[in-house]
Amino acid sequence: MAELFSEARSVDVVAASFAATPDLRLRRIMVSLVEHLHGFIKDVQLTEAEWTNAIRFLTETGQLCSATRQEFILLSDVLGASMLVETLNNRSDGVLTESTVEGPFHVVDSPVRALGATIAGDTKGDPCLVTGTVTDPDGRPVPGATVDVWQANAEGFYDIQQPGLDPEQNLRGLFTVDGDGAFRFRTIVPRYYPIPDDGTVGELLAATARHPNRPAHIHFEIAAPGMRTVTTHLFVAGTPYLDSDAVFGVKDSLVREFPTVDDPGRAAEAGLPNPFRTVNFDVVLQPSTKD
Amino acid sequence: MAELFSEARSVDVVAASFAATPDLRLRRIMVSLVEHLHGFIKDVQLTEAEWTNAIRFLTETGQLCSATRQEFILLSDVLGASMLVETLNNRSDGVLTESTVEGPFHVVDSPVRALGATIAGDTKGDPCLVTGTVTDPDGRPVPGATVDVWQANAEGFYDIQQPGLDPEQNLRGLFTVDGDGAFRFRTIVPRYYPIPDDGTVGELLAATARHPNRPAHIHFEIAAPGMRTVTTHLFVAGTPYLDSDAVFGVKDSLVREFPTVDDPGRAAEAGLPNPFRTVNFDVVLQPSTKD
Ligand SMILES: [Fe+2]
Ligand SMILES: [Fe+2]
Repeated sequence: MAELFSEARSVDVVAASFAATPDLRLRRIMVSLVEHLHGFIKDVQLTEAEWTNAIRFLTETGQLCSATRQEFILLSDVLGASMLVETLNNRSDGVLTESTVEGPFHVVDSPVRALGATIAGDTKGDPCLVTGTVTDPDGRPVPGATVDVWQANAEGFYDIQQPGLDPEQNLRGLFTVDGDGAFRFRTIVPRYYPIPDDGTVGELLAATARHPNRPAHIHFEIAAPGMRTVTTHLFVAGTPYLDSDAVFGVKDSLVREFPTVDDPGRAAEAGLPNPFRTVNFDVVLQPSTKD
Repeated sequence: MAELFSEARSVDVVAASFAATPDLRLRRIMVSLVEHLHGFIKDVQLTEAEWTNAIRFLTETGQLCSATRQEFILLSDVLGASMLVETLNNRSDGVLTESTVEGPFHVVDSPVRALGATIAGDTKGDPCLVTGTVTDPDGRPVPGATVDVWQANAEGFYDIQQPGLDPEQNLRGLFTVDGDGAFRFRTIVPRYYPIPDDGTVGELLAATARHPNRPAHIHFEIAAPGMRTVTTHLFVAGTPYLDSDAVFGVKDSLVREFPTVDDPGRAAEAGLPNPFRTVNFDVVLQPSTKD
């Protein structure tokens, strides 16, 4: 006869119910989940009223999800869970470019653009030239590497948050590096922005006196045949919230100065008004074990 | 400057974000939640695909919830979380009647019935006389105590699962004990039943080779002025699934034989056909510290 439930033995009793799980990986996950879930409940001695509120919170979080909003990802983000999963599945060795969260604003098909093109249309903001290279850990160029970029505008909004206001696919672009592994494009410097905070995640942030903002950044997804894809950001040094990103996405190695260049010749060469801002991002990809 | 996120320091960094929470109880809960959530992710080295599946599972769980279904409570139930919260908030000392989960089938207003009345209408099943008392820990009757009961029928369904098929509020009743603290009512012996398993919780049970069934039981909620309310079950000894309740609700002290009585005189006295089943449940309530 199986052991009955008791407070002292709750983990063992519930874990035992998963003993026949055919998929051993799933079994390990469920047993660990039970250990940590029961550990949490016992640690805080969760009251019945708090349990009821947790059920309400989770239910509302699920019901806020739609084709254009994923409140459970936001919840995972503000609890540092997204960043933790991202980080432990993409460990860097100090040479490889570090990853960070993808966030909810990527689109499946970014517009293909030529090297040097602008992603900013006539968008207001500080004009900026972004340059960089994609190499392997030995510094060899990675031919055929694609650089997918997306970012908020100078007011902190992505195009899909303001349908109709900006050109379609504004501030997005898919580039392919040249024979030297180099890329370059024109844009404007993005602003920090708040994650959506009118739902349960916003309720949690308000109740815990946390702000919803992310420091200014440009998203990158760099891929190449035979190499492991890196999803990351380039953060603007000096942006507000760099040390309190609501989703914990900042890593030191991803912060860059965006210095101002006052040089009419270089501005004309880049196709930008003078003065303009610049940033360089040299990306190091890891050969993939399988592709 | 606040510390940036890293795998090694993830708990401290995220916990620090809750440092300004005005409600100290909420702060403690969030810090513990982060510890256990990150501990789980690190323990199993959760992959990005598994994280994506978890987001999908939680989202679907929330979207299955409606006025008549609460899939997150079911999830809490099958993970033993409901039972753990119930148990640690209602510790018994061996004298007090033990509690168990309330479950989703209680209704706010049970029909008031006279002592000795039946709750079963003309429902099929083994006729049964339920008797008992409500006392304090010293054995003194608790006048004015109310005994709210609800149960499944002999096919394992609650009335609200089969609207129109049974009389309204079938197999439910609200009784008030007599001057000796005694109660009695007539019913039929309930059958075991499956919890709803056509949603995400059913998906989890199937993937882990767990059945969805609960052993046969009668729900009780016993309340009285100045006493702490007890929500519990009476389990039928010998019912299937007594040692593998899908929601871990069984406690030894709540299991009772339902012996058959073959005595036309007693049957006539109880208002039941002969032979009939019987069970006795003496409930001990704790004086409440405040009421
Ligand atoms: Fe972003
Ligand atoms: Fe039940």
